[in-house]
Amino acid sequence: MNKTIETILNHVSVRTFTDQALTENQVKQLVIAAQAASTASFQQAYSIIGVTDPELKLKIAYFAGNQPFIAEGGHFFVFCADVNRHKQMAKDLDMDITETIEGIDAALVGAIDASLAAQNMVIAAESMGLGVCYIGGVRDGIIKISELLDIPEFVFPVFGLVVGYPKKRNELKPRIPFEGIYHINRYDINKKDIVKKYDETTKLYYEEIRSQSRTWSETAIGSFKSLPRSFMKDYLNGKGWAKR
Amino acid sequence: MNKTIETILNHVSVRTFTDQALTENQVKQLVIAAQAASTASFQQAYSIIGVTDPELKLKIAYFAGNQPFIAEGGHFFVFCADVNRHKQMAKDLDMDITETIEGIDAALVGAIDASLAAQNMVIAAESMGLGVCYIGGVRDGIIKISELLDIPEFVFPVFGLVVGYPKKRNELKPRIPFEGIYHINRYDINKKDIVKKYDETTKLYYEEIRSQSRTWSETAIGSFKSLPRSFMKDYLNGKGWAKR
Repeated sequence: MNKTIETILNHVSVRTFTDQALTENQVKQLVIAAQAASTASFQQAYSIIGVTDPELKLKIAYFAGNQPFIAEGGHFFVFCADVNRHKQMAKDLDMDITETIEGIDAALVGAIDASLAAQNMVIAAESMGLGVCYIGGVRDGIIKISELLDIPEFVFPVFGLVVGYPKKRNELKPRIPFEGIYHINRYDINKKDIVKKYDETTKLYYEEIRSQSRTWSETAIGSFKSLPRSFMKDYLNGKGWAKR
Repeated sequence: MNKTIETILNHVSVRTFTDQALTENQVKQLVIAAQAASTASFQQAYSIIGVTDPELKLKIAYFAGNQPFIAEGGHFFVFCADVNRHKQMAKDLDMDITETIEGIDAALVGAIDASLAAQNMVIAAESMGLGVCYIGGVRDGIIKISELLDIPEFVFPVFGLVVGYPKKRNELKPRIPFEGIYHINRYDINKKDIVKKYDETTKLYYEEIRSQSRTWSETAIGSFKSLPRSFMKDYLNGKGWAKR
């Protein structure tokens, strides 16, 4: 196994960082690594906002599901889907792309581009000995956070990413077994037994590592139930996205 | 610069592969690398379909924007957003997650999870000397391709990924300059000049490398204009997704 695959397999989330800040050079290196990812039809339909203002970070940490560690150590990046620049360029080229960028597929393009870029940043950061944590909670507070970040039309924050020097790493968390995720030639809808077995593995994991009595599916389903984010459609429509 | 970052920065798409197939072991290693990525609230809301049947590959290559190389060398993976397994588990737990999984945010969760996993696979593959190409064209033919792959409700193909032994690599393509993608503390809407300058860079690039007269923005805007994928909303709704 090579070093890169080792880095990938050793990924864990980090939620406690030292006070050591990233240098400007590190930040640039991370963003450039992010930019090297593929993007859908080379649209580069994303932007990255680095939040360095301590007061702003505190506010975002609060609205992103009240996770104070976001504002503590580490550099806080917000990855955004972005076709605003395309809209600006289209105007200059006298071309009309409204039908596309108002469609739901463009929102997917932006979310995919932001995600591929972010995952590149994650691997680059971890290869440098840094720790990371994705902050999906940015979408819990997307309305307030968009105001704070001056998000214009045809941009939306997809998630945040904290990158910093780890004080403590989480343990490796077992994934759904390979056979549960991987299908051959056709989608196989009868994989519930694999997930059931995985629930036994995760039950042991949560008991031993976190002294909690729960399974993966209880956790995942519970989290889906409690976080419908039912404001998302109106929010996206308000920014021009996913209207049809 | 370490080896991993070097791999990340040297990423190019590969569209010509030798006939050498990946071994079962390589495929498993790639899927396991994909699974090591973070997933939103640890939902693991994705599945990967490996297409090995030559006839099926040919058909998909045709419907995915008529790209025959998909069916030639290399292993073809289809990355899907997937909350079907959550629906099955919720039923057993006697919990109702309809409000969440029918909402547009769940479609984003699935697309994000599939993307983070795929980008892990890309880096792992490239670190092993393999070449890759994302196939967003899978969404051009999503209706037909979903039939071919038996895609059930609450699953949708996000993109494909070909992984194989490269016969020929594309050249490194210049990205939007760092300052065009990266914002500090607030979204800066006045970055058009950077994109204009980048258009000059890409004009030279396309002239020199491909003997074509075009810029990045002409290419990107043209591709948005010609591919509105206006069937996407009905398709997604038909599979239960993004209804509200």
